Amino acid sequence: MTTNLQTFMDEYTPKINETLKQLLTKNENIPETLRDSMHYSIRAGGKRIRPLLVLATLKDLEVDSPDALLIASSIELIHTYSLIHDDLPSMDDDDLRRGKPTNHKVFGEAIAILAGDAMQTLAFETLADLPNTNSKEALELVRLLTVASGANGMVAGQVLDLEGEGESLSLQQLQEIHLNKTGALLSCCIEAGALLANLSGEEMKAIQNYAKHIGIAFQIQDDILDVTSTTEELGKDAGSDESSEKTTYPMLLGLEEAKQQLKHHHSLANESLSFLDNEHSLLKLFANYIVDRNF
Amino acid sequence: MTTNLQTFMDEYTPKINETLKQLLTKNENIPETLRDSMHYSIRAGGKRIRPLLVLATLKDLEVDSPDALLIASSIELIHTYSLIHDDLPSMDDDDLRRGKPTNHKVFGEAIAILAGDAMQTLAFETLADLPNTNSKEALELVRLLTVASGANGMVAGQVLDLEGEGESLSLQQLQEIHLNKTGALLSCCIEAGALLANLSGEEMKAIQNYAKHIGIAFQIQDDILDVTSTTEELGKDAGSDESSEKTTYPMLLGLEEAKQQLKHHHSLANESLSFLDNEHSLLKLFANYIVDRNF
Repeated sequence: MTTNLQTFMDEYTPKINETLKQLLTKNENIPETLRDSMHYSIRAGGKRIRPLLVLATLKDLEVDSPDALLIASSIELIHTYSLIHDDLPSMDDDDLRRGKPTNHKVFGEAIAILAGDAMQTLAFETLADLPNTNSKEALELVRLLTVASGANGMVAGQVLDLEGEGESLSLQQLQEIHLNKTGALLSCCIEAGALLANLSGEEMKAIQNYAKHIGIAFQIQDDILDVTSTTEELGKDAGSDESSEKTTYPMLLGLEEAKQQLKHHHSLANESLSFLDNEHSLLKLFANYIVDRNF
Repeated sequence: MTTNLQTFMDEYTPKINETLKQLLTKNENIPETLRDSMHYSIRAGGKRIRPLLVLATLKDLEVDSPDALLIASSIELIHTYSLIHDDLPSMDDDDLRRGKPTNHKVFGEAIAILAGDAMQTLAFETLADLPNTNSKEALELVRLLTVASGANGMVAGQVLDLEGEGESLSLQQLQEIHLNKTGALLSCCIEAGALLANLSGEEMKAIQNYAKHIGIAFQIQDDILDVTSTTEELGKDAGSDESSEKTTYPMLLGLEEAKQQLKHHHSLANESLSFLDNEHSLLKLFANYIVDRNF
């Protein structure tokens, strides 16, 4: 990771965390258990890749919005709600997430489900409450986020993922799962940033292309790491794909070819950014980071 | 129920059902199981009290919006998602809803959770997509619905309800649960309608007061019916409050006093509507209907 991206992350990660904390505490009437459960999963952290992608897009497109952190955080709320629900016993049945016991392990299933539900709602409440964004753009952000996260996007991906367990999937089926399960929300980060920049149709297409390819690259790297890392390194159960009989890129392609595909999508992502004419593009650095990460 | 309200319900219930069906089918890429699960709970029906309340408010306030059915249906989507999640084994663990097996009994817990998740998202997508409402009002509708249904409203109510099981609650605690669990969303129906009517501050207060009292009346009648009806009449497990050790109005007040309280809130609701100066107010008829219903 280059110094530039590190500086950017070091500056903005604490601001994102602070924004998320404020969003969870602005309402005084949340029952204590529910608040604790929501805080627990938000505090568990992670790398905040999605909100950082929103902010990086805004920087690259030279948009200065005082609501940037709120918009970025709304997507992280959706991501975190989906993790809480995906970890449930009836779904992926995971005990560890980001090195800590999963939400339902600490608070029980009922509260975990409700914390996820309320976190989804809070994401849209946050967008409906943006103090400095005009209603048209704010509503368009709500629309983008609903499409990315709903029955056509993230939730569809989780359903297909569950149904694919124990099945032998084709590469195309695997890609469809991931385009929905992780790709749609990652793309939404880029599109949310691009929305505020009034890009031309061609530029919008180019940046959506970037989003698509880093989404695929992200998932291939995830699958590679599940094979090559230890549980301690990952902060979640390593080898869990194999034990839950999930099809992965290394399984379909072999580890070497999976690495080649990773490089391929990495290149395509970066090529899509040529319209930026920016040597110091944070999005380019982000693509490198996603491919090189070891967590 | 007077003829007037019956005519209104007979006219609009099929239109609401048709709108809900269209919302679930407009996206072609929903995985089949997920779509079936969402359709199942939407088709299971119920009386559509919430969307009908939105439409009744608009009629009473003489607002003619071509998006009325979409707005009304978005609230029904939130209501239905909450029923799917509330019925789960880790929550109220109900086998029957509206006379049919609950969603998770048919589709399994994972799909039931995801169908609820996607239905919540679809509610906000519907509001973000309203074709004939200006962005400012549409965004305000999103805001109203998030506040009513999130960690401060409906979900809070469900958490307090779960935590209250087996506890002996005071009347005040019981009211707090219901103001959140059912009251907030019922109020939202009235407020959503009122939002489009540009009411004065005083009129808005009056109609919010109506919403509050029919919310309480609705719950008292629900509790009374749970004691006095059979499972067949209710279409859900009768006596389930007692068996899950929930505090109810008849339990705290005795059946006769609970009925008196019901009358009291019914009167207060109708008095709040005096500003309408409308003998044929649908909302007044609605209050009578809620109190007199036997399901």
